[in-house]
This record gives sequence, C-alpha cells and structure tokens, in this order.
Amino acid sequence: MRLQVVFRHVTFLLFILSLSFLFPAVYSLWVNDGLFMSFLYPLFLSFSLFLLGIQFENKEPKVKEAILVVVLTWFLFPVLSALFYIESGAIPYFADAYFESVSGFTTTGASVLSDIESLPKSVLLWRSTTHWIGGIGFVVFSLSLLPVFGAGGAQLMRFEAAKAIEEKVLPRVKETARAILVVYLLLTLSEVVLLKLCGMSLFQAINHTFATVATGGFSTKNESVGAFHSFTVEMVIAVFMILGALNLSLYYRAFRARSLKVFFSNHEVKGLLAVIFISTLFSMAVLLKEHVYTDLFTAFRYAFFQVVTAATTTGFSSTDYTNWPPSILALIMFLSLIGASSGSTAGGIKQFRFIVMLKTVYSELKKTAHPRMVYRVSIGNRVLELSILNTIWAFISVYFSTAAIFGFIIAAFGHDLVTSFSASVACITSLGPGLGRVGPAGNFGFFSDPEKLLLSLEMILGRLEVFAVFAVLLPSFWKE
Amino acid sequence: MRLQVVFRHVTFLLFILSLSFLFPAVYSLWVNDGLFMSFLYPLFLSFSLFLLGIQFENKEPKVKEAILVVVLTWFLFPVLSALFYIESGAIPYFADAYFESVSGFTTTGASVLSDIESLPKSVLLWRSTTHWIGGIGFVVFSLSLLPVFGAGGAQLMRFEAAKAIEEKVLPRVKETARAILVVYLLLTLSEVVLLKLCGMSLFQAINHTFATVATGGFSTKNESVGAFHSFTVEMVIAVFMILGALNLSLYYRAFRARSLKVFFSNHEVKGLLAVIFISTLFSMAVLLKEHVYTDLFTAFRYAFFQVVTAATTTGFSSTDYTNWPPSILALIMFLSLIGASSGSTAGGIKQFRFIVMLKTVYSELKKTAHPRMVYRVSIGNRVLELSILNTIWAFISVYFSTAAIFGFIIAAFGHDLVTSFSASVACITSLGPGLGRVGPAGNFGFFSDPEKLLLSLEMILGRLEVFAVFAVLLPSFWKE
Ligand SMILES: [K+]
Ligand SMILES: [K+]
Repeated sequence: MRLQVVFRHVTFLLFILSLSFLFPAVYSLWVNDGLFMSFLYPLFLSFSLFLLGIQFENKEPKVKEAILVVVLTWFLFPVLSALFYIESGAIPYFADAYFESVSGFTTTGASVLSDIESLPKSVLLWRSTTHWIGGIGFVVFSLSLLPVFGAGGAQLMRFEAAKAIEEKVLPRVKETARAILVVYLLLTLSEVVLLKLCGMSLFQAINHTFATVATGGFSTKNESVGAFHSFTVEMVIAVFMILGALNLSLYYRAFRARSLKVFFSNHEVKGLLAVIFISTLFSMAVLLKEHVYTDLFTAFRYAFFQVVTAATTTGFSSTDYTNWPPSILALIMFLSLIGASSGSTAGGIKQFRFIVMLKTVYSELKKTAHPRMVYRVSIGNRVLELSILNTIWAFISVYFSTAAIFGFIIAAFGHDLVTSFSASVACITSLGPGLGRVGPAGNFGFFSDPEKLLLSLEMILGRLEVFAVFAVLLPSFWKE
Repeated sequence: MRLQVVFRHVTFLLFILSLSFLFPAVYSLWVNDGLFMSFLYPLFLSFSLFLLGIQFENKEPKVKEAILVVVLTWFLFPVLSALFYIESGAIPYFADAYFESVSGFTTTGASVLSDIESLPKSVLLWRSTTHWIGGIGFVVFSLSLLPVFGAGGAQLMRFEAAKAIEEKVLPRVKETARAILVVYLLLTLSEVVLLKLCGMSLFQAINHTFATVATGGFSTKNESVGAFHSFTVEMVIAVFMILGALNLSLYYRAFRARSLKVFFSNHEVKGLLAVIFISTLFSMAVLLKEHVYTDLFTAFRYAFFQVVTAATTTGFSSTDYTNWPPSILALIMFLSLIGASSGSTAGGIKQFRFIVMLKTVYSELKKTAHPRMVYRVSIGNRVLELSILNTIWAFISVYFSTAAIFGFIIAAFGHDLVTSFSASVACITSLGPGLGRVGPAGNFGFFSDPEKLLLSLEMILGRLEVFAVFAVLLPSFWKE
C-alpha cells in the first residue's frame, strides 16, 4: 500500500468534486443571499489539500490502492459538504450536516430537516447538486471500478462492459467518465426542459431534475413532488426516474448502434419494467379494495408513482402514503431492496442479481426431484460459472445481513422495529424515506448523533456495494 | 410416478402415525373424560385407508415417489388430528383444528387457543403428543431422506451420515429410525424424571417433556413455562431444549465411541452454543440497561431461557416478553431464523448453513482486494464443492423469500407489519410465537380461516425445508 499514491488521488478527486460548489456559489452571488463565501470555503480547503497531494509523484494506483481511494473519497467528500452546511448556518451541527451530505452524495435522499422550504435557495441547490455529482460519480465507479474489484457482479459487469480486467485503472475510469457524462448531461437537459414545459420554475425544474436523474429524492418542497399537484409533472418525473435507473452505458451503445434494440433486449430493463408493471397493478388493486382511492385513474396515478420511486430507489413521494395498507408499505421496501439496473444511479441488489437468484433457485428446485441433474445459469447469452454465482450469493447475503444488523443496532437504541428496520433498508438501498417515524411525512432528524453517523456509514456501505468498504477493514487488505 | 406405490406408502405411514392416538386414548379411558371414542375415530379412519393401501403391491418408492409420500403425509396426518379436535369438540372449526394440528406436528407450537387450561387433559396430552411424534418423524426424515433429495444440506448431510446415496430409500429410513428412536426415548425419559424431581406432576412433566425434546413449545399452561415460577424447572427445560436441538445421530455416535468428543468437535454444536452465549450476554446487558430487571441473576434467568427457546426454535416463554426492548425481540426472530443443528427437531436454516454462509462471505471479502484469489470453504474436515455451496445459497434464499412472501401476504390481509412478518417467521422456522398480536401473550386465533390455512401451509413448507414441497409443484416433477 503506497499511501502517498492514495493521498494524491484522494485529494485530486476531492478537488474535482469540490468544483461543483461553484455552481450554487454563482447562484448565490446572483441572488445575493450572502452565502457565496460559505461555498468557497470548502472549495479552498480541498484546493489546499490538492496542492499538498500533487507534491507526490503521479503513479498509477493498483487495485487495492484504487479501492482505498474510492472508499476514502466517499467518506471525505461529505465532510467538505458538511463544512458548508455548518459554515452557512443552514445545518449547524456536524452529525446532521454530515448525514445530509452523505444522504445527498450517495443519492439516498433521507433528510434530517423538517422544514426544507425555510432554507435559502442556494442551499437547496447545493443539496440537489450533491445528488447530481454523487449520481454520476457512482455510475463512473460502478462501470469502471466495480468490474475490477467489485463484489458480486464483478465478472458479470466486466463482460457486459466488454472489457478485460486491466491493471491500469485510470484510463478506464476516464474513458467511461467521458462517455457517461454526455449521456447524463443529455438526460438532465431533457428533463429540465420538460419540467419547464409543465409549468415549473427553472429553479424547481433544475433541483427536481438533479434529484430525479440521480435517483436521489431530495425535493425543495416539504411535500416532495406532491406539492406541485400536477399529474404531468409526476409522469415526467416518473419516466425520468426509470430512465435514470437504467444502465447508462446502454444509451451510449444505443446511440452507436442507432437502435433502441439494446434497451429492449436487456434483461435488466425487462426485469425492472416487469417489476414495476406487476407492483403497480397489485398496489392499485389494494388501494381500490381498501377504498383509499375510489377511481381507477387516481389509484393508478399514486400507485404508479410510488412504485416507480421505490423500484428506482429514488424516494420521492407524490402523496403521504403513511396510512396506505401495510402490504403496499412492505412492497415499497421490497422493491428498493431489489433495485434497478447495474451501471445506473439506483441502489438495491440490482436486477441482474435478482434475476440470477430467481434462475438459480428454479434450477435447484428442479434438481430436488432429479438429484443428478447438472444445470447452468445464464444471463443474456452468457453462461455464469459457479464461482460467479457464488460471488453473487455472497454479495446478496452480505447486503441483506448488513441491512439486518444495522436495523438491529438502531432498534437497540430503543426505536420501534418498523422504524428501525425500514430506516436501515432505506439507507442501504439509497431509497431515502422508510416507514414509521422515518416515513414520507417524517424525517431522520430525531435520531441521536451516533445513530445519524451509523446510518451515514450504512448509506456509504450500500452505495459502494458493501464489499469494498468491508475489504478495507480486513487485516489481509493491508498485507503486501 | 406410480401413484399406487405412493398411495400404499402414504396410507401405511398415516396408520403408523395414528397409532399414537392410542396414548391419549388410554389416558382418556383412565380419567374417564368420555373422549375415548373421539381418539379412536381418526385411528379407525387411517386403519381403513391402510387396508385399502395394502391392496397394492409393496414396491420400493423411487426418489420422486418418496418425496411425494413425505409431502402428502405431512399434509394429511394433521387432517386426521384435526378430525379428532373437531369430533371431541375441543376445537370445533376445521381451519382452527388443522392449524393447531399442523402446528403440533411440525413442532411449531403456535396456537389458536386463548385459554389452554380449559381443555380436557387428554386433549392437552394429544396436543403434546403431536409434537413428540412430529419431532421424531422430522428427524428420521431429515437424517434419512433429506440426504437423498433434500435441499441445500443434501450432499453435506450425506457425508455427515457417512452414507452414499442409495436408490432404495426404505432400508435407510428404517435403520435411521431405529437408532434415533432409542436416543429420543432416552432423552424423553430423562427429562420426565428430572421435571418430576423438580416437583412437577407426572402429567405436566410428560407434556412439557414432549414439547421440549421436540423443540415444539406447546404448554399445558396459559403462561407457558413461566406458570411454574421455578428456576430449576426453567433450567432443566432449557438444557433439554438444547439437547433436543442437537443432531440426534451425535448421541448414537458418542455412545458407540464411548466419548463425548463427537459433541465438542461438532461445528454445529459449537455454533449453537456460541450463538446462545453471545445472545444471552447481549440480552442481559439490554435488560439491565433498560431497567427491565435490576439484578444480574434475574436478568440471566429470563434472558438465557428466552434466548435458548428462540435459538432452538422451541417457543416456550418463562415470562411475557412482549414489552422487552425491541432489539431483543428482533434478536429472538433472528435466532429462530438461524436455528440449531441439522438432524435435530429444530427449525431455521440450521447452524451448518449459517457457518457456511459466514465462511464464504469472509472469503469473498478477502477476494475483493485479491481478485485472482481462489478459495475453498470447508466444514469439519470436508471441503465443499462450489455446486454444494450453490445449493446451500439457493436454499437460504428460497427460505428467506418464502418467509418474506408469506409475511407480505398476511400483511395484505390487513395486519400490521410486525405481526405479519413475525408470524410468518415464527411459522416457517417452527418457532411458534411471534411479535405484536402473535406475541407470547397473544395467539393465532384472530386470523381468518384462509390466513390460518396459509400459515399452516407455511409451517409445513418450513418443516420440509421448502424445496421438497415446491419441487412437487413443478411440471417437470410429473414428467417421466
Ligand atoms: K434515493
Ligand atoms: K417450536
């Protein structure tokens, strides 16, 4: 482990990410809300660190060093953002400010704030911006680095990206980042334009677009998307949540092939749409049966939006669903655990792992009656080796165990089981809102400082797909 | 599929099992409570079926036929028991009577009854007897048949039993049954004697022994074991719950080797004891911290008993723990999901699968930083092939998914999430009591008939380790 190499790359990444402070800073200057210097403060800090870092020689990080760089960056950038929240006075305490920052950067969208609308607009813009850069950051990470050292989907994603493992990770990261950035910008631009056409102000359109394409879920309204009382706004956002929850490399490939076929032949796209379709029908049926809504259209409107927001792990809400029948609430948590496409901004175990799980289980069931049967699991046109299946299973069990253990720890602080476990699921999947006290009408503000820091840790664990962070904690990681 | 062969063996098994009606029947004659004929009625019925069955030629069942025999027997014997409950007037409605019978026979111990003490004593004795025969029936099944067609642990258990797969299953079943029956009878006798020495009446001693060694959990008291207000009774029962939750073939092997070493070198024994030790310490700490109990002894007394009852999936209670801190309640459900030893009467995913999961996950974490690493998972002195690991993973995910889906279905009937999901976990793991409305002070009586039948199905699914039942539902099962 060459710590100088790690330091250099971490400080470089932190500086690059900190450039995003300029966006709300300029806005702050324009509206003249006096927060301009608060935005520059963390930027200066990261610039100083960057100047320190470039003293060290610029060497290619090896796999373990790259892991450490990513993990440290994900923990440290929210510290810079927290410094801004504290400095600006918007969120004066560290645990709160760090939680809100991690929640933004991991595109979770859980908030400690009870009255969002009372914040200065430039602060709201920064909040949404953390989603946007966290989203693109994660996609670049998952498309370029997960294939090298990632968990579960590593070998699979490598295949999908049609790339062999390379010792040199940097060129790969840069190349991916360039292609994806264009897609991400185009998605963002399209949604801003459409939301503007629906009658939103440019400010609202930009904020909600950032939170949508990053499947983040921060809103500038206390009532989230429901505040706009507009069916078209909800539909535009729903469609873009789905678009943001697809593998962003598909857009690139579709463009190069001049064909949308790559979308409709993709197993993860089909899986996500199937899950959304079935869950919407189920939710509509329950809502109508329990007389929560009495007409088909209204039931569709709210059921579809809530299903999409859960399946894409965005976490917006178009209505306060706290008092919906418990089976839909459970469904929302299940959907977020499954999640959407790999290579998207969404969380959860991801569609391809879910599909692999279903296929393996089906084969094993058949094997019960035919003990000598040998089977193969394939996804797309690729047969998965047993060792890959094993890695996927290990990932799924670590993921669920982590969710269970954090839920358990939160419960040990004295919270009720529904609140504790749904908060844990909402944080690891990057869904955002949970059930009980952390439901759509509540927030995470009532948790104590240690709890907020634990949940921040869990958000980062979930975002980095758990393995990378745990690997760093193993003694063998630090041996040569 | 030769249905005549299946019919012959099912009717034979049902008749053998029905002979157990004679035990409470004789007791009923002795106390002269007028229920004698009610006990004979299902016995006559099964005898008639048996006479029908032996018309068919006695042929060795093949694997698929054996699966069907086991599944049908597990669904049908509770029907005979339900007929008794209805006929005797003790539980007049079918869904209730079937639920109580399945709960007994699967050693779950969940009850629809609110006032157990009001039942005639011979009925209580039958209730406990269903535990006892269900327990021995399951152990014979899991030691002799699971190794042939079982899920997950199949290949592993086969190795542990030091037996190769044989096409002829019957001799294997008979041989296992003989060895295990002796162990089971000795355990039963020892506990009855000890409980008698603790001052229990012979009737109470026998009933609680049946429910203990089968890790069943039916009590003859509304307050369960807590009704005796005796620390020694609680300790005797706790020790026998643990003894009943160990692989019964270990006793046989220890006897042949004239050494207890086989116990202390067994990974499942060590795993169970470690889990109980850690969980007891944790629960004591929480109970003392939250001032539920103020002295160390009382905290140990109740924490230890409740941890053992959960880890062995027995489901007794020595106090109403409904208002204990939520983290302990969650722990109780986790413990039952892990469960105890394979080849015991306990439920859950079993210690060896849990250990395999931990070992694989640890290896995969190390692999993150060393992508080219090749690892092996071993248990005892046996290295597990990847295909075995894969079967185990599939089992675990089907098991947890089934628990989640049934919890979801119960929630869809309109129950709160804690009640729904804990009821589901309590049924699939054969724990018995859950949380919320199905907690230690509650019962399953308030569920509607369809819900009771669904939960009965889930208890059987859990008991037969899921795969066997689902396999029967696959079209490929019925093809030649
Ligand atoms: K989110
Ligand atoms: K039980």
